[in-house]
Amino acid sequence: VRVGIGDDCALLRARAGEELAVTTDLSIDGRHFRLEWHSPEVVGHRTLARGLSDLAAMGARPVAAFLSLGLPPELIRNRWPQHPWIGRFYDGLLKLAAEYKTPLAGGDLAESPVAVADIVLIGAVPRGRAMLRSGARAGDRIYATGALGGAAAGLARIAELAAEAGPATVKRPLRIPARLRAALEPHFNPRPRVAQGLWLVRNRVATAGLDLSDGLSTDLNHLCEESGVAAEVNAAAVPVYRYTAAGGATLEQALHGGEDYELLFTAGPKTRVPRSIAGVQVTEIGRVVRRRAGRPLVTLITASGARPLEPRGWEHFS
Amino acid sequence: VRVGIGDDCALLRARAGEELAVTTDLSIDGRHFRLEWHSPEVVGHRTLARGLSDLAAMGARPVAAFLSLGLPPELIRNRWPQHPWIGRFYDGLLKLAAEYKTPLAGGDLAESPVAVADIVLIGAVPRGRAMLRSGARAGDRIYATGALGGAAAGLARIAELAAEAGPATVKRPLRIPARLRAALEPHFNPRPRVAQGLWLVRNRVATAGLDLSDGLSTDLNHLCEESGVAAEVNAAAVPVYRYTAAGGATLEQALHGGEDYELLFTAGPKTRVPRSIAGVQVTEIGRVVRRRAGRPLVTLITASGARPLEPRGWEHFS
Repeated sequence: VRVGIGDDCALLRARAGEELAVTTDLSIDGRHFRLEWHSPEVVGHRTLARGLSDLAAMGARPVAAFLSLGLPPELIRNRWPQHPWIGRFYDGLLKLAAEYKTPLAGGDLAESPVAVADIVLIGAVPRGRAMLRSGARAGDRIYATGALGGAAAGLARIAELAAEAGPATVKRPLRIPARLRAALEPHFNPRPRVAQGLWLVRNRVATAGLDLSDGLSTDLNHLCEESGVAAEVNAAAVPVYRYTAAGGATLEQALHGGEDYELLFTAGPKTRVPRSIAGVQVTEIGRVVRRRAGRPLVTLITASGARPLEPRGWEHFS
Repeated sequence: VRVGIGDDCALLRARAGEELAVTTDLSIDGRHFRLEWHSPEVVGHRTLARGLSDLAAMGARPVAAFLSLGLPPELIRNRWPQHPWIGRFYDGLLKLAAEYKTPLAGGDLAESPVAVADIVLIGAVPRGRAMLRSGARAGDRIYATGALGGAAAGLARIAELAAEAGPATVKRPLRIPARLRAALEPHFNPRPRVAQGLWLVRNRVATAGLDLSDGLSTDLNHLCEESGVAAEVNAAAVPVYRYTAAGGATLEQALHGGEDYELLFTAGPKTRVPRSIAGVQVTEIGRVVRRRAGRPLVTLITASGARPLEPRGWEHFS
């Protein structure tokens, strides 16, 4: 980043032999977060995590982030460090940005009747090497990083808590008991798999890949559509999130819950895929098969037989 | 643009020797436009024009645009071509995008209680040659493209019309009489000065520059702050927008009205600046002077004397 905040545009320089990956993600109060449930730090963290995860999904290294923020006047006035909300929002966002070495290079701030945050991420990837959704071939194996369903399980727990606690407001937000921290970690503190995406691209391991933002069922259907293939998932192999022996996500949450921000990727049958990449476990969960008329795009194989795995995760409109 | 809409990120390639300019602009219903006053095509056009104008302000050529759109459900349902609003919004945006050879390469769409549109523009400029705000030196002359105040005059005319017509809604928007088209042209149909910005950079004419989005008084103050200089503006020289002998903007609107999206730039006293660039007139309106303690950053020289030109245009929060 050569010129940042303060001029009409930020100026970026790419390295020779790289292309740039660009992604935008819009987060809206009441839809992607709730001011009365999520602390400002969590909203900031999750806003940036969505964008970083899109870079991870291409195997790109982060170059810069841009933030457009629309906030109700009461959240803007008396700005940082005097006012808690906007300063704490930036604290959460900039802490994650520092961990992922991603400078915030510009943006826009305006009054808005509803809180909205649009995050733009620019990344760089060696030319022609980005991990696309379209490269999976029949015979490839399907892998997921980390564990799935934790974000959905956490959100469900928050909704229960909110129902018990009664109405919350921005000024008197829902109180989260300390004993729930571990259970809510995947929802409050997702870790985009940037290092894992970079590793997959550098080592030419993945034939295709994306991030699990909408849920395994929906995202794997996307990958099959873009690659012109079908897939079989082995239910027993799906890594379901657990934080204690007794606590964790259900298989349904692991199959359909969104916002885990893990990577889903495919690799050729002869490719050696390690059990963990950059400290995160990698699990083989199924295989890519030829697409056949009348057969579902994605089939779930369970002990009691096979059934279609319909996309039932979070669907954006676009 | 190598990979556009449909994958996790869009992929862009810069040419050797170029750097990339990135800008984001958030437009919000009730603040930057009004659904009951502005047609969907106008909202689409103005959303993109804001971003293109930031590229023009750096002298960058447009490479790609990204749009994050948050809309109330009633504007999303029954999408194009069935439903008028969203299709007509894209019509307005894509028409301008085609004229400026700017592909729409990605974005995001979500439900939102209030209509919001965040536009991201990526441009390219030869390395080290971008027109910055910080290069003006004492002795430079100050120039503006086109005519000023037309957008503010148009907006004032619409507000009058709305006051006469009574309450309007999205479904029954304000009707704009055909006789007002010329008067409202600068507000409804701003033309970002991309070709002029490119010309200034290619010919190494400008020492500094920005776009007149917030109003001459505010933007010239910004330029002086960033360059560490002061400025004098000759009121008689300011090109005030007129569409007939009798109709047009006032000097006040030309000095303080925002959203004209003309360029304001400085050039050395010996530099020959043409009277028009790519078909748009260029007017010398003042000069850059040394900053002195106790003196205003910007002084307006009129027949009756000199007075400070305080920034009274549109101020963003940031």
